Amino acid sequence: MMSMHTKNINTHLVEIKDYFKVAISVDCVIFGFNDDELKVLLIESDLKEFKGKWSLLGDIVRPDEELDEAAYRVLKERTGLDDVYMEQVQTFGAIHRHPAGRVITVAYYSLVNIEHVELKLHNNELHWHSVKDLHEMAFDHKQILDTCHERLKQQVLVQPIGFNLLPRKFSLRELQNLYEAILDMELDRRNFRKKFLSMDLLMDLNEEEEDVPHRPAKLYKFNFDKYDQRKKRYLGIGF
Amino acid sequence: MMSMHTKNINTHLVEIKDYFKVAISVDCVIFGFNDDELKVLLIESDLKEFKGKWSLLGDIVRPDEELDEAAYRVLKERTGLDDVYMEQVQTFGAIHRHPAGRVITVAYYSLVNIEHVELKLHNNELHWHSVKDLHEMAFDHKQILDTCHERLKQQVLVQPIGFNLLPRKFSLRELQNLYEAILDMELDRRNFRKKFLSMDLLMDLNEEEEDVPHRPAKLYKFNFDKYDQRKKRYLGIGF
Repeated sequence: MMSMHTKNINTHLVEIKDYFKVAISVDCVIFGFNDDELKVLLIESDLKEFKGKWSLLGDIVRPDEELDEAAYRVLKERTGLDDVYMEQVQTFGAIHRHPAGRVITVAYYSLVNIEHVELKLHNNELHWHSVKDLHEMAFDHKQILDTCHERLKQQVLVQPIGFNLLPRKFSLRELQNLYEAILDMELDRRNFRKKFLSMDLLMDLNEEEEDVPHRPAKLYKFNFDKYDQRKKRYLGIGF
Repeated sequence: MMSMHTKNINTHLVEIKDYFKVAISVDCVIFGFNDDELKVLLIESDLKEFKGKWSLLGDIVRPDEELDEAAYRVLKERTGLDDVYMEQVQTFGAIHRHPAGRVITVAYYSLVNIEHVELKLHNNELHWHSVKDLHEMAFDHKQILDTCHERLKQQVLVQPIGFNLLPRKFSLRELQNLYEAILDMELDRRNFRKKFLSMDLLMDLNEEEEDVPHRPAKLYKFNFDKYDQRKKRYLGIGF
């Protein structure tokens, strides 16, 4: 008993052949933003167990494929995009999560500008869905979506990744709408603007919105160069 | 071609049997803290490819085992502990990362109080190592260690998880030493204390250190009850 426990895959090669029976997949939570709502790109599952339920976009990782590569392949096949923000979030491996056998799935989220996306392979009802309207989904995909959304909530506070969801030129109103949609909370308009302007990373483009049904707002873009050049700040402790 | 791409594991069950040939493992980055240094628990690999190199503690996930369960089993086997802080960090799946075949590994870190650990199964030179002294390791374990250390650096700033590495009663000096060891940077003593006292989550125990070679310092413990009761604060945006 003792000796069985101490032999393992990091130290020995004995008796492990029986364990090469798992399949590995990737699932992509592809987030977009329009109509002031956080959206996610989904298809309908054909598996009889999940008939008519919404599923994330995912696929088996091929034998000669890296995990990230598989995730980018799935994204490219459906959106035509490959140069997008993507982050591995968490791996889900509940024993019976997939009816085909033990399928462990590595979940990624990516952030795309919906305007740049031309959906491809429209089978299985490929559509954007409002995240807040989703309840039941196929497999453990609701749990995966929730986990990725939580990670996104944390990350937009400390990294300028949210801009991947916006047009290159945006108004402060659009930026606040984005943050409110992601964080699922209302933010004080004055504090929000003060905070962003004080970071001194938005470039005033001296342009205004066009064709809007309200008073046109000033347009900005995020200064990624300046952000990259800035020495990584020690953000301080707070909880 | 089109139709092959659109059939995948989320929608169909066709032609996927060939993919059930992967093995899944967990690797545990077990962090501890003593002598003012961040430590990690390692063993020596016996695999001829990595002879004499240090390896994380890990094992194959068994067919009837959840991922987290496997990680807790590995931890328990070597440290006797099971009620410890553990977090899944990232999954590593480079095609040739393991000489036995395609082994995808899910990396966890856990934070233990070294004083509570009674090392078990001492084979393969099970020892604590100073994180900053580690350079080459077996497999991709240096990359896994670095990734987990980065995550720990982020998390100790926003969550009170660092206390898992300290004795229940600690001085402000010990707390600062811990943060400096994790963040690998010097912190200003006055600001550090001001910051922690202003969070109002440290309980002054009206006790002092004993048997120390310097002026005994006041002892504190972290008020987890108060922290849990506090409404989750909106931490604000900053990057």
